[in-house]
Amino acid sequence: MEYKIIAEKKLNHFIESTFLALGFSQEESSNAARVLVLSDLRGIESHGCARLHGYIRLVDAGKIKPKANPFVEREKFSTATLNADGGLGLHMGTKAMELAIEKAEKYGSGWVAVKNSSHFGVAVGHIMKALEKGMIAFSLTNASPLVAPAGGKERLLGTNPICYGFPAHNKSPFILDMATTVVANGKLEVAARKGVEIPLGYAQNKEGEPTTNPKILAEGGSMVPLGSDLEHSSYKGYGLGSVVDILTGVLSGANFGPWVPPFVPFLNQIEENVGEGIGHFVGVWQVEGFMDLPQFTARMDKWIERFAGSKPANGVDKVFIPGEKEYLLSLERQKNGIPIYHKVWENLVEIDQRFSLNILI
Amino acid sequence: MEYKIIAEKKLNHFIESTFLALGFSQEESSNAARVLVLSDLRGIESHGCARLHGYIRLVDAGKIKPKANPFVEREKFSTATLNADGGLGLHMGTKAMELAIEKAEKYGSGWVAVKNSSHFGVAVGHIMKALEKGMIAFSLTNASPLVAPAGGKERLLGTNPICYGFPAHNKSPFILDMATTVVANGKLEVAARKGVEIPLGYAQNKEGEPTTNPKILAEGGSMVPLGSDLEHSSYKGYGLGSVVDILTGVLSGANFGPWVPPFVPFLNQIEENVGEGIGHFVGVWQVEGFMDLPQFTARMDKWIERFAGSKPANGVDKVFIPGEKEYLLSLERQKNGIPIYHKVWENLVEIDQRFSLNILI
Repeated sequence: MEYKIIAEKKLNHFIESTFLALGFSQEESSNAARVLVLSDLRGIESHGCARLHGYIRLVDAGKIKPKANPFVEREKFSTATLNADGGLGLHMGTKAMELAIEKAEKYGSGWVAVKNSSHFGVAVGHIMKALEKGMIAFSLTNASPLVAPAGGKERLLGTNPICYGFPAHNKSPFILDMATTVVANGKLEVAARKGVEIPLGYAQNKEGEPTTNPKILAEGGSMVPLGSDLEHSSYKGYGLGSVVDILTGVLSGANFGPWVPPFVPFLNQIEENVGEGIGHFVGVWQVEGFMDLPQFTARMDKWIERFAGSKPANGVDKVFIPGEKEYLLSLERQKNGIPIYHKVWENLVEIDQRFSLNILI
Repeated sequence: MEYKIIAEKKLNHFIESTFLALGFSQEESSNAARVLVLSDLRGIESHGCARLHGYIRLVDAGKIKPKANPFVEREKFSTATLNADGGLGLHMGTKAMELAIEKAEKYGSGWVAVKNSSHFGVAVGHIMKALEKGMIAFSLTNASPLVAPAGGKERLLGTNPICYGFPAHNKSPFILDMATTVVANGKLEVAARKGVEIPLGYAQNKEGEPTTNPKILAEGGSMVPLGSDLEHSSYKGYGLGSVVDILTGVLSGANFGPWVPPFVPFLNQIEENVGEGIGHFVGVWQVEGFMDLPQFTARMDKWIERFAGSKPANGVDKVFIPGEKEYLLSLERQKNGIPIYHKVWENLVEIDQRFSLNILI
């Protein structure tokens, strides 16, 4: 059987128990489990429980500190810089968002730059609390340098995601959560696993030439920014990825660009530091600072209705709203369980055995 | 002669005088001239003086009101909604930015949504004051519906630009100013004028099929979002354009999506309104709310140095920093004058004659 089905609750319990066994606090472990499970529910398997062993590897290596004590280094009403104390990004992204929400409730908006953190999982994992409160939310992180600038061949940027969420009334929220590259590197991993080529315009070799080889990253190649090539404005994807790097890394005091400490195992640890750990940036706008919330969510419903009902191009079934597919999938998986690829499952079973959890078997 | 060269100061004086002759205030006219000339200086000819006649047409038609009185409809410390009173976007974008700067000086950040406005020119035109003050600036606008959602064939969005600016110390500032489509429609106009085809991946026909015809918009075709096609993640460009539409249109109380009143003459005025005028959204973060400004600008210099010095791909001369090409061009044009395409020049001369300005001839 290629996939094993697991119930959401059980997967959550297993991941939470793993983090507890690693020495994390109850709050850290709950946040970590929630963010990883959300990723699997929404169909972003590359960022879900398949990455659990990656976090364990970094904890074992002393690169992520359990029971860290994050503290505000600096603030000014609507803004703050949070030092994550070398702790777990999966938790710190959400702590930063809680602070941003508090600020927005007082000052209309709240913005928190985070330094000295580690991999924070899917960006959408940290905006949900704000959406539930009827706020507009924003979340960014920098990441392992795997991406060349437009027209370049050195790996200087991460896939640096941008996530925006807007609440609606009768509709599911509008959620855009996107890598600033054409595709995330997870897509290359999936193609390599299946032994198929990738389309031109996803990645390039170490000379900066287009390739269809899904294993090109291990050979010094790089991901390319959204736009694919200079003629199709890849400088825009590069520019957006750079904006993410600057807000999360330069402004927070974290490492940035090629100096971001890698999460992926095939990149060597970087020797020079230009800051502390990796960086995130989260923020919220309180809708009431601009407009009554019921008026805004009714307008969002109207927007969503018009776009969701728009005519598809020839050969396409339906126009989707950002986040709609992922939302529908998460409803289905909450009901019927989450499919786990057999190799990932074996890996989870090993983790279960290492910590004697007896949850999966 | 294909191009006529004009000095920056003279062009500025001419445009300012035109707006004064149309009945705008000194401040409105200065801002309008500054924004249009900046566009020509930076090489974005499609958004500079070539569009002057477009603004005149809308003033003549009673769709842009001279001497408008913008007012704050609602605010909460770091946020506000500005009603532009049906006035000139070229001026209102900058007024909104002034309010955002004031808020950021008090609360660490400032965010202003603008409704009941009109076309605001290049987005970069409204961030310069913030950059001069060492702030991080952000500016967005919605625009004439010419863009289909990813996988769609109806024109529901504008080319909805995103502009981000970051100050540096010894380096010129990092400025990303990009349409959320593969290219702006100005590129199609230029190709049509020259009688050449456009590359695949810039636009599509009214059935949503790829085309190389630069006149396709007049035949019901549409621009496509950054990414070009579904396989290359055009849903990301669509998502970003949608975020711009929601912040500028839905949140401000302006029109949004297909209901945005068109600037381009080949689109008919829309009958239904879902708000007032077109919308903008501007904001700033004060660096000191996160980090000392000198530390930040030194870190920006380091970022810029590393990326500007990075190895180009085979066949490429140099990796550029966002905004670098435009900055270098503006220095050159400030010194040697601005080239104006002969057909645009003839049009400016007509305007000079209509208002008896005697500036150009």
